[in-house]
Amino acid sequence: MPTAPEEMTLKVIAHIHTAFPTKFGIPRQSGLVDELRGEVIFTPEYRNADAVRGLEDFSHIWLVWQFSGAVRDSWSPTVRPPRLGGNTRMGVFATRSPFRPNPLGLSSVRLEGIEHRPDVGPVLIVRGADLMDGTPIYDIKPYIPYADCHPDAAEGFTGQTQFHRLQVQFPPELLAQVPQADRAALTGVLAGDPRPSYQHDPQRVYGMEFGPVEVHFTVDGEVLTVTGIARR
Amino acid sequence: MPTAPEEMTLKVIAHIHTAFPTKFGIPRQSGLVDELRGEVIFTPEYRNADAVRGLEDFSHIWLVWQFSGAVRDSWSPTVRPPRLGGNTRMGVFATRSPFRPNPLGLSSVRLEGIEHRPDVGPVLIVRGADLMDGTPIYDIKPYIPYADCHPDAAEGFTGQTQFHRLQVQFPPELLAQVPQADRAALTGVLAGDPRPSYQHDPQRVYGMEFGPVEVHFTVDGEVLTVTGIARR
Repeated sequence: MPTAPEEMTLKVIAHIHTAFPTKFGIPRQSGLVDELRGEVIFTPEYRNADAVRGLEDFSHIWLVWQFSGAVRDSWSPTVRPPRLGGNTRMGVFATRSPFRPNPLGLSSVRLEGIEHRPDVGPVLIVRGADLMDGTPIYDIKPYIPYADCHPDAAEGFTGQTQFHRLQVQFPPELLAQVPQADRAALTGVLAGDPRPSYQHDPQRVYGMEFGPVEVHFTVDGEVLTVTGIARR
Repeated sequence: MPTAPEEMTLKVIAHIHTAFPTKFGIPRQSGLVDELRGEVIFTPEYRNADAVRGLEDFSHIWLVWQFSGAVRDSWSPTVRPPRLGGNTRMGVFATRSPFRPNPLGLSSVRLEGIEHRPDVGPVLIVRGADLMDGTPIYDIKPYIPYADCHPDAAEGFTGQTQFHRLQVQFPPELLAQVPQADRAALTGVLAGDPRPSYQHDPQRVYGMEFGPVEVHFTVDGEVLTVTGIARR
């Protein structure tokens, strides 16, 4: 057996830019809100058009990234997945929790296109990313359906709860204050219920930062109502 | 935008044990030879049954690992995928090549079961792994079909070449020298054509190490013939 190194050091090859300056509101998996737009911008050493040659022929890609908002020195063998109500403990390796021995994230996102910009080189335009703005990326790989897609895979605990979708009431005068390009994505994020695990106070006003705006809303039963929009 | 660290250091959480002491013969993607058995054994700090609680309810898992046989200090923006005959250059991020800025591997494998052994704790029994014996593993995640499976994803260059399957002639007296449990996996690996990119000398005898044996074979056209088995 070859001797394995005990540690490996990774270099940041890119950062992603998304509408989420904080963790609050980020969908719990990639692909849930396809309208969410992200831009992957390479760090200077990797700004090379040759390095992405042929990537545009794939419709989906993998991002391997760091849960940069969740780095801890210690680890816990169990975590509480929000999908189980936040009360049931599961093994950390049976979840996609950010709090894991190595804070590595893995997301498949749709590749909408590649733009070549004079200042930063190739930029990957992606849809559906569940990453915070500025997240460091360590690898980009093509999604290869014959190897990566297992339609009959058992869903484990993720199949135990239905997707929870809220009805979003977005008063037109408030929606008009959101840039046109952000409206569908923001509405999709709100429908996915961005509240922390299962709070149920209909009086509570939540605030969420999304791109250039801060959104305020309340949730009563299955209805989310936007109550205010402010420029950040 | 949060400030991102320029580097991240990963800890080895486990090693995988497979039948491949060297790179020669390893399938080019995971899942191609389902009979290939692997054992994921945690490093001492992570030998904790709680950390895999609930994982047995998933049929597939992701392994994030290091191309420990391919670590280099420099990187090249392009590589030559074997599926394109070894002559066409593609961007490194458009391929799964081991030679990439961060030598991270990503494989989905079938989880056959979890054994709890007094000496090493929980052991994940997996099928279809494309990893060399002793490969260090940095993360294990459940495969979540609703987020990870994109049946309609475009295959890029990986769709340009058909899978190449050889007919394997394995004389019974030689097959009898291979441990029963290894026979189907070894035959599957040979059918996948373990030769380096497209060599075509029918006289050449190849040698491949697989578990407890060394296999010798020739290839003439679409027929692979096993010519010898030796104990390693």
